[in-house]
Formats: sequence, structure tokens, C-alpha cells
Amino acid sequence: MAAVDLIIFGASGDLSARKLFPALFQLERLNLLQKDLRIAAVARTKQTLDEFLPVLKGKMASYMGDDAPSDDEWASFTQRFSYVAVNFSEPDEYGELREWLDDERVSLFYFATPPSLFAPICEHLSTTNCLAGDCRIVVEKPIGENLESSINVNEALSRYFDEKAIYRIDHYLGKETVQNLLVLRFANSFINSQWDNTCIDHVQITVGEMVGIEGRWSYYDKVGQLRDMVQNHLMQLMCLVAMEPPNSLEAESIRDEKVKIVRALRRIDSQSVNEKVVRGQYINGWIRGTAVPGYLDEDGCEMDSSDTETYIAIKAHIDNWRWSGVPFYLRTGKRLPEKVTEIVIQYKSLPHNIFGNGANIPNKLVIRLQPNEGIELSMVSKKQSLKERMSLQSHLLDLDFREGSDLDRIPDAYERLFLDAIQGDQSLFVGREEIEESWRWCDQLIEACKEQQVPALPYQAGAWGPAKAEVLIEKDFRSWHV
Amino acid sequence: MAAVDLIIFGASGDLSARKLFPALFQLERLNLLQKDLRIAAVARTKQTLDEFLPVLKGKMASYMGDDAPSDDEWASFTQRFSYVAVNFSEPDEYGELREWLDDERVSLFYFATPPSLFAPICEHLSTTNCLAGDCRIVVEKPIGENLESSINVNEALSRYFDEKAIYRIDHYLGKETVQNLLVLRFANSFINSQWDNTCIDHVQITVGEMVGIEGRWSYYDKVGQLRDMVQNHLMQLMCLVAMEPPNSLEAESIRDEKVKIVRALRRIDSQSVNEKVVRGQYINGWIRGTAVPGYLDEDGCEMDSSDTETYIAIKAHIDNWRWSGVPFYLRTGKRLPEKVTEIVIQYKSLPHNIFGNGANIPNKLVIRLQPNEGIELSMVSKKQSLKERMSLQSHLLDLDFREGSDLDRIPDAYERLFLDAIQGDQSLFVGREEIEESWRWCDQLIEACKEQQVPALPYQAGAWGPAKAEVLIEKDFRSWHV
Repeated sequence: MAAVDLIIFGASGDLSARKLFPALFQLERLNLLQKDLRIAAVARTKQTLDEFLPVLKGKMASYMGDDAPSDDEWASFTQRFSYVAVNFSEPDEYGELREWLDDERVSLFYFATPPSLFAPICEHLSTTNCLAGDCRIVVEKPIGENLESSINVNEALSRYFDEKAIYRIDHYLGKETVQNLLVLRFANSFINSQWDNTCIDHVQITVGEMVGIEGRWSYYDKVGQLRDMVQNHLMQLMCLVAMEPPNSLEAESIRDEKVKIVRALRRIDSQSVNEKVVRGQYINGWIRGTAVPGYLDEDGCEMDSSDTETYIAIKAHIDNWRWSGVPFYLRTGKRLPEKVTEIVIQYKSLPHNIFGNGANIPNKLVIRLQPNEGIELSMVSKKQSLKERMSLQSHLLDLDFREGSDLDRIPDAYERLFLDAIQGDQSLFVGREEIEESWRWCDQLIEACKEQQVPALPYQAGAWGPAKAEVLIEKDFRSWHV
Repeated sequence: MAAVDLIIFGASGDLSARKLFPALFQLERLNLLQKDLRIAAVARTKQTLDEFLPVLKGKMASYMGDDAPSDDEWASFTQRFSYVAVNFSEPDEYGELREWLDDERVSLFYFATPPSLFAPICEHLSTTNCLAGDCRIVVEKPIGENLESSINVNEALSRYFDEKAIYRIDHYLGKETVQNLLVLRFANSFINSQWDNTCIDHVQITVGEMVGIEGRWSYYDKVGQLRDMVQNHLMQLMCLVAMEPPNSLEAESIRDEKVKIVRALRRIDSQSVNEKVVRGQYINGWIRGTAVPGYLDEDGCEMDSSDTETYIAIKAHIDNWRWSGVPFYLRTGKRLPEKVTEIVIQYKSLPHNIFGNGANIPNKLVIRLQPNEGIELSMVSKKQSLKERMSLQSHLLDLDFREGSDLDRIPDAYERLFLDAIQGDQSLFVGREEIEESWRWCDQLIEACKEQQVPALPYQAGAWGPAKAEVLIEKDFRSWHV
């Protein structure tokens, strides 16, 4: 494998200290970084590496707790580091970086910066001849705020990088459990053979956040929960659940299948939006005993009213052979009672129940990304009893096997994703087509909401969204898993 | 429920002390016997109850170990007991029993006697007017030694008892795990929906015994392993695995489905017997470090040679819609390396393997009746690892849920079966038709073996039967589970 250097733009930022450097450090600790891999921390501030490092160390210590590097580990880890001061908007300032780069090696640029800087940085890297070698780029969401702007971002990137060199992170895809889902589906004929509308009743995907707007009110108010969470994370999870078996584990093969799902998503238009979509906005309430403000009372809000949704529930349909008739219920919101990300596959009920009352409990497969990553199957078994002749009970079966692990913890998504980007494996990164097709679908949904004036219904902080979100699923004689 | 009395013929015998009275005592201890249920211990020896009981208590203590009754429990349990001396062949001796019986109550006769006595005892019970009330009868295998003799036994019983009053025990059916199998199949759509030839590759049923002939050589030599084990136990297990979902849990409904399986069993005739059947007979060898004699050196053997099989392996086919193309491999033998009874359902391999070498490990469902009763599913999961990107491993998943149990042990089959017989539930007992159809199939197989002179191949005690039994399955590119 070619030697790789990492160049992190925005090295002083929150994402870097909270996720990127801790992930790199964990890889170092596991001896999984090549000996000669160099790291350039790039940020605006004019300072030396010796000034940069102690601040980073302090932040990492507070984020990583017991896992934080010891002094020895830190000394060894930071041997790899250089600090390069660049005002990202100033082409004149890229000279030192150009000096640092080695065109004999792969340069992996990581843009931990606001998306508005993606294009200018690329341009300046190019004009200052920083892209002369073999280069890759890693970017994070948001890739645009609608179809048009996402095309613009992708076009800008593609001017300088081939699609095969662009690594778009959706960190959900780096989670161990998401990879387990692929193994579950495609390495167990037992699961694989009934992953369709003959056996599955419906699918639920829930991404619940307990946090509110966290100081980014004016940004969030222009975006809302659909663009912030559904367009990327929920869409990606839905694709992994619903896609046809890919021909191989190659990125292209997986992306082909994912994009087919997005394309097969039934459009939600003015006719159907009232029946398929519930929007909400939290008002003040309580979460775990703490009073929290409503959306319009959050820091940074300077408006009297807003139609932005902080909660959305959608009944989606995938119009293909496998999923015809199987609804996908999606919901995500802020200030919900739990921080939870889970996918629930509910199998069909028994066609005929010979065990009497209460026995017809459908099997469910619960794929939980947080908290407590894991996969569980609910099954019905006989209660061991002589007194009760045939008394049944439902059990959760843990399908997530830790005992073979060579780690004493579940690795963070960024560790996997860094390793893959370094090794040039794009399979857990998001392709351009998926993003744009997803925006196409979301834009249409947003347009329909506007046309039909679908209101953002108030819900108390600490509730599972507005009551109408219950109706969305209950009218189909189903109910939300949590 | 009507009051019930139990009348145990052969109360001094081995089965009574080893299984029947311990089971009844466990039910007593759990408070599951009706307060007014009486027990008549019937045997030949002229003795009083006070002479009978201490001997029984001693035997039970040795069989039950820590579970044996305390003195208080024994005193309370034996309150129910009467001892009635009867020479079973002497109609004159049934007077005392007639006195004891109460025609207002259900009389449940349990024949723990040699089958040759079934008919005479029935006749004498009848002529001495012991069957005037509401009567049921419980009998154990063997019900005949071929189709003709089994019809004779059944005819004899049916002269005095309605089929609905005849409880034929196959104690395998009373095992907790067998009932779990029914729940697994019929209360989990997840399992139910793929229980057929589209998903299942083949089924194996193994009943391995470590014991030899145990002092009954001259009886066994006339019978052999097919009649002794396949005709009843393996056939019953195969029926429970293969039967269509019954319309209800009523005995009739389950029996209807079981008998359909036996009728659908493809006959093994002279043409196919060499390809479908392997017979064996053990020679001297070692089991767990102990030298054991060969079949012809066992106590009671007075012959120089014998063609009786102590091992048999059969490749069977069920010619119906569900199982077309799915072979059922059956094997059972004496002096095998393990005492094991298990059913293995092997699912089909993945049609396409995207994970590389070693990943295509078919899912298996293992239903084990002994040792360690339980149900396990082997699944493939991703090894939790950063170093190995997609390394798969096979795991055994325990599907047998004990935590909801209201018992601190797995109940013995006889406990369940006694309770059911007392409560008049025949669903775990064997119907006449099943037995006779099973004999019809076995007789044909035996006939074909004779015609083709299929030899009983020697195998060392402590081996898994003759090598040809491996060929039987390996030639289909499959292998025995153990």
C-alpha cells in the first residue's frame, strides 16, 4: 500500500478534537497506522506545533476520559504531527503546506470545515499546486441544502477530484452495527431468504435526539430536521436495510444498490403529503427531570414564530419488487425523551394462531446504533412450566456477538472510516448519486409540505413528537416500537 | 375436571421406580396432583403397602439423588397409595382391585408391564367388571414388532378402550424441548415462513446411545435398532419436524398431520435400499477409556453370529410439496461415542458469497433432546475488529429460554405425560394410525434389506457406526453434524 499523509483542515475545531484526533489516536494505540504516516494539522491561527499540541491534548483528555493518551503515548503519537497555519481563503498562505506535501505519497485531505469553504479550499489547493500528487478528499455533511446546492458542491469537488477520490462521510455508516447488519443480511441465508414483502410487515427507523439546537439556531432554522437528518442519515440507513444484495462488497456495487432504493422511493406530493408526513416543533417541557426551553426560546432565536420542523415522521414506500406493500416509517426529532437510533424490522404476524390469546407476537429484529449498539431478535418461546401447559413468552435474543472481539470496546465510527480512507476503500462512504437523488426526493417532499401548508405541530420537549405522529402509524394498525 | 385414580400395573418394576413414581412425586411436590387423586400400586407379590413402600423408597432414593423425597414429603405422598396384589394372568385375583376402584371417578390404568400382558390384563379387567366406569389406559412401546403384531396389539386394546382413551407413550414427546420445537415452528413467523425446501437444505436426526444391550440380548437380537428406535422415536421426531402446521393443538389435529408425513415417506425397496440404508453391528472397542465387548460377546449372547443391526443410518425422503428434494438423514446406534439425541435443520448455503473465503457457513438449527436439552441456532456475524476489516465468524445462539421458568430444573418427560394423561390431553401421545403406518414403512425397509442381503457391517464400539454411514451422506456433499 502506498504511504499516506493526512492533512486535516480545521484542526483546531470541535470535530477534530472530539472525533478525528481521538480516532487517529486509537488507531495509533492499536498499531494500525502505518509507521510513516504523517499528520498535518492545518488551521488559521499562527502558532507553532508546541503551542497547538497542549491545547489539543487538553481537549482530548476531557472528551476521552479514561481512554485519553498517557504522556508516553502522546509523545509517540505526536511525532507524526506538523502544524501548518493557513488562512483557508488566502491562496498566498498555502506555500508552507505545499512545502510539507510529498507528491510521492498519497495526500488525504480531510475538510473539517464549514461546507462553504470546500470549494475555495479546493481551488486554492489546486492553484498552489498542492494537488500534484495522488490526492483524496474527505468531507462531511451537509453536502448542500437542496438538490441544486448539492450539485454545486459536488461539481466544485469534481473539478479537482475524481469521484473515486472523494470520501463523503456519513458517520452512521462507520458504526460496527451497520457493518453487522450487512453480515446479518448477506452471510445468513436464514435471514436473507425472508428479507422481503412475503415475510416482513413493515420497517421503522427512529433517530431520536435529546439535545435541542445547541447554539446554531439561525443555521438550523433555515434547514430543519428533514434536511439535517432525514436526507442523509435516515436515508442511508433505509438504503442499507432495503437494498438488493450487492454483487460484491466493492463501493461501486453497494452504491449502485443504494441509489436504486432512493430512486424507487415513492414521491410524496401534494396529494399524499398530509397522509404521509407529520411535522412538529417542540415547545418547552421536561427531559429527565430538567426543564428545557421551547424551540422559540432557545439561545440565538430572534423570531416570534417559525415554521421550521424539529420533528418529522414519514411513511415511505419503496416501489420495487422486494418491498411492494411494506411501509417504511421514518421519524426523527430533537428534544425527544431518548437519544436513540434504531431500525426495527417487524415480521408478519402468524397467519393462524394455535396457541391462544397473546401468542401472536410478531418477530422483530431490532438493529440499534445507539445507545448500546447491538442487534436483537424478539422470538416467542414456551415458558418452561408444568403448571401452565403451553404458556408462551416473548424474548429478546442478542445477535451481536462480542466474544470474538479483539477489542475491549466498540470502536468509534471515525476509526473505521479513517482506516478505510487511508486504505482507499470507499464502500462505507456516500456516493454522489445517492446524495443528489436523496435531495431530489426531499425537495419534492418539502415542496409538497409548503403547498399544502403542512404545519409544524407543537410537541412538548420530552415527548415522542406530536400526537399526530402516533396517528400516522396507528391508523395502519401498527405502532412505534418505543 | 373429574376426579382421577391411577392404577399402576407393574408397580414393583424398574420403570415404575426409575420413572413413574419419581415423576408422580415431583408433581406432588409442585402441588400439581389433585388433592383426592389415589394411586393403586398393582404387582404380583403378596405383600402389604407397608412392605411395598420402603423398598420403593429405597429405589427412588438411589435414582433421584438430591431430588429424593424427604421423610415428611414421603409420608404425605404415600397417603395416596394403596397396594393391590394381583397375578395379572389370573382373573380370579382382580377382586380386590374391583373393590378399590370407584366408578364415579376416572380410572387411569398404566401398564408398566411387558406388552404380551396388555391383552390379557385388558380382558381380565373387563371380565371382572373393572372397566365399568370412565377408564383410560396408558401403554408404552413396543406396540408390536411389525405391522401385523402391532395391529394385533391395537385391536386387543380397542376391544376394551376407545382410541380416545388409549394413551401410547413415546417419552421423547414429553420432553420440554420437543414442545419448544412446536412453539418455535408455529409461534414464530420468522421460523415458520422458511420451513420448507426453498430454505432448508436437509435435516439430520441422530439418536446415539453409549450403552450396549443391557442384559436383554435374546430379546434385542430378534428386534434390532430399526424396530427398537427408528420405528417409534426417530419417526416421531421426524414427524414433528416435518408435519404441516396443525389447525389446532388438539391431539387429533396433530395426529392427522403426523400420519400424513409417515404416509408420504418414500418407500425404501430392493432397488433403493443399498443406496439409502447402512446397517452396522458393533465389535469390541473403547468408549471413554473403557474397553467394551462386541455385540457377540455381550452377556446373554449364545450365538456365533448374528445379522441383527445395532446401528442403522437411513436417507429418507418425504414426498410432499414442502419437503420435495430435502433429504432426512436418520441414524441411531448402540455403543456410539456419545449419548445424544438431536435434530439438525441445515439451511441452504448462500447463493452468492460476497465476503470471501470461509464466509459461506450455512445456518443450522440444532434441537437437542439430550444431553443438555436446548435449541441452538448457528449464525454468522462480523468479528468485532478494526484490524480485520470484514472477518466473519460462526456463533451458536441459544434459543431456549430458561429465565422465564417457574421450575429450577427441566422436568422429566414423564411428569408432563402423567399430567396430560390425568387431564385427558392426548396431544403428546401417539395415535394408532401413526404406529401402524410407521410399521408398514419399516417392514418394507426390513424386507428390502433381507432381499438385498444388506449386511450389518462391523464398527468398533466407540465409533460413529460403520464407515459406510459416512459415505451415505458424504456422497451428497454433506456431512454428519457430530
